Amino acid sequence: MPELSDVTRGRLVYGGDYNPEQWPETVWLEDVALMREAGVNLVTVGVFSWGRLEPSPGTFDFGWLDRVLDLLHENEIGVSLATPTASPPPWMSLRHPDTLMVTADGVRMSHGSRNHYCPSSQVYRHYARAIVTALARRYGEHPALRLWHVNNEYCEVCYCDGTAQHFRRWLCEKYETLGALNEAWATAFWSQHYGEWAEILPPRAAPYLRNPTQVLDFKRFCSESLLQCLRAEREILRAATPEVPITSNFMGLFAPLDYWQAAAEQDFVSHDWYPDLTDPTAHIGTAMSYDLMRGLAGRKPWFLMEQSASGSHGARRPPGHLRTQSLQAIARGSDSVCFFQWRASRAGAEKFHSGMVPHRGPHSRVFREVTALGRDLAELPDVVGSPVPAQVAILMDWDNWWAVSGAHLPASIDLLARLRDFYEPLWQLGIVTDFVRPCDDLTKYPIVLAPNLYLLTASDADRITSYVDEGGTFVMGFFSGVVDEHDHVRMGGYPALLADVMGLRIDEFLPQQGSLSCTSELLGEFTADFWADDLSVTTAEPVAEVAEGELAGTPVVLRNGFGEGTAWYVATRPEPAAMRALLAHIASRAGVTASPQPEGVEVVRRGELLFVINHRPEPAKVVVEGKRVDLLSGERVSGATELPRYGVRVLR
Amino acid sequence: MPELSDVTRGRLVYGGDYNPEQWPETVWLEDVALMREAGVNLVTVGVFSWGRLEPSPGTFDFGWLDRVLDLLHENEIGVSLATPTASPPPWMSLRHPDTLMVTADGVRMSHGSRNHYCPSSQVYRHYARAIVTALARRYGEHPALRLWHVNNEYCEVCYCDGTAQHFRRWLCEKYETLGALNEAWATAFWSQHYGEWAEILPPRAAPYLRNPTQVLDFKRFCSESLLQCLRAEREILRAATPEVPITSNFMGLFAPLDYWQAAAEQDFVSHDWYPDLTDPTAHIGTAMSYDLMRGLAGRKPWFLMEQSASGSHGARRPPGHLRTQSLQAIARGSDSVCFFQWRASRAGAEKFHSGMVPHRGPHSRVFREVTALGRDLAELPDVVGSPVPAQVAILMDWDNWWAVSGAHLPASIDLLARLRDFYEPLWQLGIVTDFVRPCDDLTKYPIVLAPNLYLLTASDADRITSYVDEGGTFVMGFFSGVVDEHDHVRMGGYPALLADVMGLRIDEFLPQQGSLSCTSELLGEFTADFWADDLSVTTAEPVAEVAEGELAGTPVVLRNGFGEGTAWYVATRPEPAAMRALLAHIASRAGVTASPQPEGVEVVRRGELLFVINHRPEPAKVVVEGKRVDLLSGERVSGATELPRYGVRVLR
Amino acid sequence: MPELSDVTRGRLVYGGDYNPEQWPETVWLEDVALMREAGVNLVTVGVFSWGRLEPSPGTFDFGWLDRVLDLLHENEIGVSLATPTASPPPWMSLRHPDTLMVTADGVRMSHGSRNHYCPSSQVYRHYARAIVTALARRYGEHPALRLWHVNNEYCEVCYCDGTAQHFRRWLCEKYETLGALNEAWATAFWSQHYGEWAEILPPRAAPYLRNPTQVLDFKRFCSESLLQCLRAEREILRAATPEVPITSNFMGLFAPLDYWQAAAEQDFVSHDWYPDLTDPTAHIGTAMSYDLMRGLAGRKPWFLMEQSASGSHGARRPPGHLRTQSLQAIARGSDSVCFFQWRASRAGAEKFHSGMVPHRGPHSRVFREVTALGRDLAELPDVVGSPVPAQVAILMDWDNWWAVSGAHLPASIDLLARLRDFYEPLWQLGIVTDFVRPCDDLTKYPIVLAPNLYLLTASDADRITSYVDEGGTFVMGFFSGVVDEHDHVRMGGYPALLADVMGLRIDEFLPQQGSLSCTSELLGEFTADFWADDLSVTTAEPVAEVAEGELAGTPVVLRNGFGEGTAWYVATRPEPAAMRALLAHIASRAGVTASPQPEGVEVVRRGELLFVINHRPEPAKVVVEGKRVDLLSGERVSGATELPRYGVRVLR
Repeated sequence: MPELSDVTRGRLVYGGDYNPEQWPETVWLEDVALMREAGVNLVTVGVFSWGRLEPSPGTFDFGWLDRVLDLLHENEIGVSLATPTASPPPWMSLRHPDTLMVTADGVRMSHGSRNHYCPSSQVYRHYARAIVTALARRYGEHPALRLWHVNNEYCEVCYCDGTAQHFRRWLCEKYETLGALNEAWATAFWSQHYGEWAEILPPRAAPYLRNPTQVLDFKRFCSESLLQCLRAEREILRAATPEVPITSNFMGLFAPLDYWQAAAEQDFVSHDWYPDLTDPTAHIGTAMSYDLMRGLAGRKPWFLMEQSASGSHGARRPPGHLRTQSLQAIARGSDSVCFFQWRASRAGAEKFHSGMVPHRGPHSRVFREVTALGRDLAELPDVVGSPVPAQVAILMDWDNWWAVSGAHLPASIDLLARLRDFYEPLWQLGIVTDFVRPCDDLTKYPIVLAPNLYLLTASDADRITSYVDEGGTFVMGFFSGVVDEHDHVRMGGYPALLADVMGLRIDEFLPQQGSLSCTSELLGEFTADFWADDLSVTTAEPVAEVAEGELAGTPVVLRNGFGEGTAWYVATRPEPAAMRALLAHIASRAGVTASPQPEGVEVVRRGELLFVINHRPEPAKVVVEGKRVDLLSGERVSGATELPRYGVRVLR
Repeated sequence: MPELSDVTRGRLVYGGDYNPEQWPETVWLEDVALMREAGVNLVTVGVFSWGRLEPSPGTFDFGWLDRVLDLLHENEIGVSLATPTASPPPWMSLRHPDTLMVTADGVRMSHGSRNHYCPSSQVYRHYARAIVTALARRYGEHPALRLWHVNNEYCEVCYCDGTAQHFRRWLCEKYETLGALNEAWATAFWSQHYGEWAEILPPRAAPYLRNPTQVLDFKRFCSESLLQCLRAEREILRAATPEVPITSNFMGLFAPLDYWQAAAEQDFVSHDWYPDLTDPTAHIGTAMSYDLMRGLAGRKPWFLMEQSASGSHGARRPPGHLRTQSLQAIARGSDSVCFFQWRASRAGAEKFHSGMVPHRGPHSRVFREVTALGRDLAELPDVVGSPVPAQVAILMDWDNWWAVSGAHLPASIDLLARLRDFYEPLWQLGIVTDFVRPCDDLTKYPIVLAPNLYLLTASDADRITSYVDEGGTFVMGFFSGVVDEHDHVRMGGYPALLADVMGLRIDEFLPQQGSLSCTSELLGEFTADFWADDLSVTTAEPVAEVAEGELAGTPVVLRNGFGEGTAWYVATRPEPAAMRALLAHIASRAGVTASPQPEGVEVVRRGELLFVINHRPEPAKVVVEGKRVDLLSGERVSGATELPRYGVRVLR
Repeated sequence: MPELSDVTRGRLVYGGDYNPEQWPETVWLEDVALMREAGVNLVTVGVFSWGRLEPSPGTFDFGWLDRVLDLLHENEIGVSLATPTASPPPWMSLRHPDTLMVTADGVRMSHGSRNHYCPSSQVYRHYARAIVTALARRYGEHPALRLWHVNNEYCEVCYCDGTAQHFRRWLCEKYETLGALNEAWATAFWSQHYGEWAEILPPRAAPYLRNPTQVLDFKRFCSESLLQCLRAEREILRAATPEVPITSNFMGLFAPLDYWQAAAEQDFVSHDWYPDLTDPTAHIGTAMSYDLMRGLAGRKPWFLMEQSASGSHGARRPPGHLRTQSLQAIARGSDSVCFFQWRASRAGAEKFHSGMVPHRGPHSRVFREVTALGRDLAELPDVVGSPVPAQVAILMDWDNWWAVSGAHLPASIDLLARLRDFYEPLWQLGIVTDFVRPCDDLTKYPIVLAPNLYLLTASDADRITSYVDEGGTFVMGFFSGVVDEHDHVRMGGYPALLADVMGLRIDEFLPQQGSLSCTSELLGEFTADFWADDLSVTTAEPVAEVAEGELAGTPVVLRNGFGEGTAWYVATRPEPAAMRALLAHIASRAGVTASPQPEGVEVVRRGELLFVINHRPEPAKVVVEGKRVDLLSGERVSGATELPRYGVRVLR
């Protein structure tokens, strides 16, 4: 199978989305000259070119694209060739209105934006296959071709009648009998018993709460629909060019598509990332998204496909910050730094989205930074392909995400915020984290964390039980282990199958509106909020409890020795300092070394290299072990070293 | 006519909704054993069982329900048998899409939730009659049957074409001629003149304010539609089982259905009540809803059909609180304490709604409290059927509620909040209040209150005038007496027909954004907000006026002697302490005795018994007249007695 | 051409909307008697009378209107006769559902409100022409007729299929070829290339950002649709009564209709104005709307068609304030004071909208004030027709407004707030402002202001360049000069065509979340917010810059000498005092005299008269040059004079 190394070929990839069809050909020559100046070695072409490539059904116009690819090749710039299937041309809507996406309220989308197609539409899929086939035929042998970029940011969710039909077919395959479906969906509740398959619909507009298992299965089905589209394109491309890697770009922590499954369908994982630049801790969320990508890639290198060269959507990237965020991606496992987009558009809905070449042109701060970054990346060939070691795993599961986002739960759960409650203190402790699935092999990690793992299958519960039994350290957040794969509560006290591992049994969930004062020998006094449980201890030992008020004495952190291992339960949301102290303690007990840095500084080892990154606009002082060389500046570093604002050192 | 005493038979009813169809039959045996342990003597069965009882059109499956009723009967547990018509099965939507409810925007609801039917649909009504007939035939003679529970929480409002047709028919009966309708709807305004009946529609989506009389009549019609459904079921049940009482559960202060009319169609009034448990004054709103139920029941006992056994929807019921709220219901006239539901569901949209038997099972705090409450209730047979005396009446009228909720008024009026402005101080003064209609006999009450009685018919105005003239004390809130039954303003200065009774005439309403400083010999200095009037006094005497600012000198509380009686006008919203002082003064003048208690304590007389209830999580001290026995604890009480947190005494 | 002077005939017009069809004829006699008492000399009749005039298609009933016009004429009250086309009768919706407006989500509006028609509907237009023709025929010769009032507050926007067809036709006329449209709409972006005209739709519901040029062209088209309706009615009326002036009432700063174009289609400009009476600075926004009307009228007098006689929509007009606001209109160029409405309705959606005769009747404060105002206006015949001189112009362009309201810009821009940032300090400085188009002759103004002139055509840029070159003072706000008429960015650094005039070039926009500390020799220390630029100076001289933080040193106010003139650039939103100081400085340099008054006091010269207006509820002292007579009180005034609360003097 082709892989990312077939794209990188020993160099970090540098480039961006290139949309020459928006510009006169005279501009193209300036483009390639500037690309060479900036050190660009790969551009993505054709992402939204369907309307230009197939101006009317079955009529193709490849001339302009031929010239683009030839020009790039002449200039030694590789091409990531995109299939344009994320935005069907207007002719498709006009001729086939049923290719258009429909909301749960029955509103049919119109063309004039993008992503307006129904992914279950057979007509859409037919035309998508045709254009992909044509592209593969025409460019499969083109010497510039380095990778296939399938579609763009898959995200479509449709409730139309055609979708309903496919949903029923998918359910029929899954459940085989209506009886099994009625049981799984618990249709005895609220008189929802289905007597025929034809009665089943997507969870459309309804007067009140909808059946949560229907909603959960629909989310599974929608994800599967997108996967079918991805697979169909991949098969065509694979057959035409077995040696060219294929990817489809992800968007970080994005709910509608199960990225574990999607990653398995691709040759490598690619990522589009637009942090909120007004948030001074954005680099932590960025690190989390990068680590997730590395997890999706099976702990192998991944590909940064899109980021902004400067501000976008109303927030600005300060001078110097572009380099910081880009090298952070390399530190956490990316083998590329790419952008949306090469040249800022002069028209259209994203004309104020930044470009490597901004509206101002090359005589601009942004282009100067872009060019400098190109030079920096050229200094780092050694990093290509190397791994990022981690000793802690966080469990991340799309099925759980979908279930725990239900409208009918005791509290509204934002899984991303709950993940970050665990991730952020680890980041501050300098502990690198992998994201894994509950069904993955956990034994390689001294510590496994499970924030809000509400839905838990029996086999995953078994795997966790064995993991602890055999010596692992398992840290579980509240509202976990509650339901099975059909969103049915396991009876007898939560967390049911994990009750023995955790050494406790929960009677009742106690979501909190205000804040709780807590006390702990280990952690001192701290406040907590959002959640508590009415629980009884069997074998666990309370580590912290509520200090006063209605819930005084209620344990909120517990530890349980189970077999050779230890299970921790965090029944509330401790204030950040307490959570950090708790995780530091747990890490230390499990032999995982923390190396906290000054605020805003990140130190990450990748392969033989140590990345030291200052995410703040003030200088920072960092102490580094041993004598090292900074590959970017050539300076020798030993002991304490000062980093300027947004400064980065890559030390060997 | 059958009545509530046919259900109670000398005992307080204790039980809840029971949904055995969600569980394997093996669980049923545990259920009845636990019910006996808990003192349960009645359960409601079948509320949402349509899909299970009639899995396809006209095919009935009663086997499981036969077994449930037999089992309950064997265990001496009575049955409230529900008609399942609140949630039609999916087969009905598939075969008859026009049975589905449609919003004002034209969005047709889908099945997959509940309450998705159009109440005007003849097809829906046909099938509803059929299933009710089948149930009545099969179980009319069953020895477990104690009452019929019709539908569930009627609430449906539909704007579909079928509804439009029925709306026109209803209008035609009401107005007889188009001319009368055009006059009532004031269609000369904005060119809305109707030339044919066929032109008339429900108030669907429109670009701007809709005709307020059209909206008002549509609300009347929608309420009537629900009443037709209720009547149709009742007729079938009455004919089959003339001796079995019939009820349909209410939901407190709920706008879409005129509960006065609905109460008149039933043998007794039943109530579902889920207070916001995060509100520390929730018990006052609860008391208000209980008093309304007693009013709807014609001051006779009513039936608490649903409450939560513990938390629900994100808020928790603290230990001990279940007993408090339940005995408050008995104190204010309920002859039952029932729950949704017996056993917490393991699946479906309400699986985290609490149950008498929670997910944890019977070895849980909740079930222990449930069992203890069952024992308490068994100690109180004497209370069954006894009345709750009250000397103050609050006027409550659905027509007024609908009209005063209009989008076109000088301020947005929340009638429930305005009712509570009057109710809460009375509760704090220990004065029990009845809710009555303006058209009821008022003469039995020394004091009658009318918060925000915007819509007032001429005959109701006459009744109020006579009431005052003959010696009554009438207290009217602002924005009252403004329009007639067609929402037409009565000319010449508000409150028009009551201007003489109140001794004043209002030029202009002055809704307030900020707060007003007021002064009064009677009440001292106080602040007020929300409203004021530009009024001129004829015979009234100002009691309080604005002290400073633009409105300095404007009277905000006035008293007028009229005939033998007194009319008070409260033209603003005084701060709570001032409103309490005012009502205490009025009560005292009218010979109504206040008996204020420590904060959060409620003392209510019902029949021969005195209920003393502490709604707060701290102990409270209460002084009781005479020597009494606490029926719950057996203790003798005289003079000062201490109540523990959430403590209740029922004294004889 | 007929003009406003044909209506005024030497007197200020005084009156309001009169809707006798809502009242029995007996009331009409009282009406005209009261009108005479109040000094009313003109009323508008028939605005929403379509349903009464044409109760079924093609059947007219003019009898009642005949009687109304005769009665008014007998009483020497002129008539503004309205075409009733703003609210088609229900029969039109029933027979022709496609005359109903449809939202972008596909929701079809219903009758029962008003303004529910599709302005592109040929059926609607057919019936509108018919009723207008009938009215013109019947009343063209009526002696009471003084002016035609076409439709009412044009505002309809529709997305239906018929509209789509007209939109395509309009585009076809505009662009001639699909290629030109594809280029203008930049359809290469996101695969929106159109292969046939039939593929083009209004910008209906879409999953993400819509094509901004499509949206802009649709706004142009919608405005043009309304103009077509206006023109069609005007042609009929003009042909029938060439000597009778025609107007259609505006609503201040209202986006959907280009009022410059609409003004050009009428004989004079009329205005409906309902300020937010809870805002203590409402009079400044009112002044702005009045100045805009004078601009739309080509600096000639305009007509105040609607205001409220007292409170409306929840806010109250304090005693005395009616006179203040009315005379402010006269001061700023109105030759009329009219109201909605003569007599407050007793029913319908606007029954709590105030009337000159309120619900209370004539024995009310409001009617007393109305009558007094009538007397005041009768004292001011000299003002009729006279001009209001101004030395400063603000550029206001609907095309720019539409473009700068796009959803895809670096920040969400509220153009009205940005206009007010410039207008309010000028008002406080006592400098009267004209609103003009960028394409108007600017040379008569010493100073021209351009807040947020995002869209700028090349010819307008030329005109501004020449204006400065020849000695003008041009003050430009941020985010100006960015795009051309197709919303395409002009490359090479903003503000592109104006970069030389401004002496600077902007690399990047820096919208601000928080506040900036700034420093300036001219203005001292001040704060600013909302915006900054990353810019480089060519010839401009920084006047103020950011003092600290990330952007320290960034210029935020710059001055550039260009040719004979000066260009100022305000790159941020300075706090009000700094903005006022800056504009005072600029005015002084340009020889424009400021005459600041005590807070809330306005002094405006109109013709020979000086209006001195106190907008606050406290007395104010004003110094007046020379010896003058107050036409309202007859008092002689020289030097300092005291104005009571809300007091006005009109000095000669």
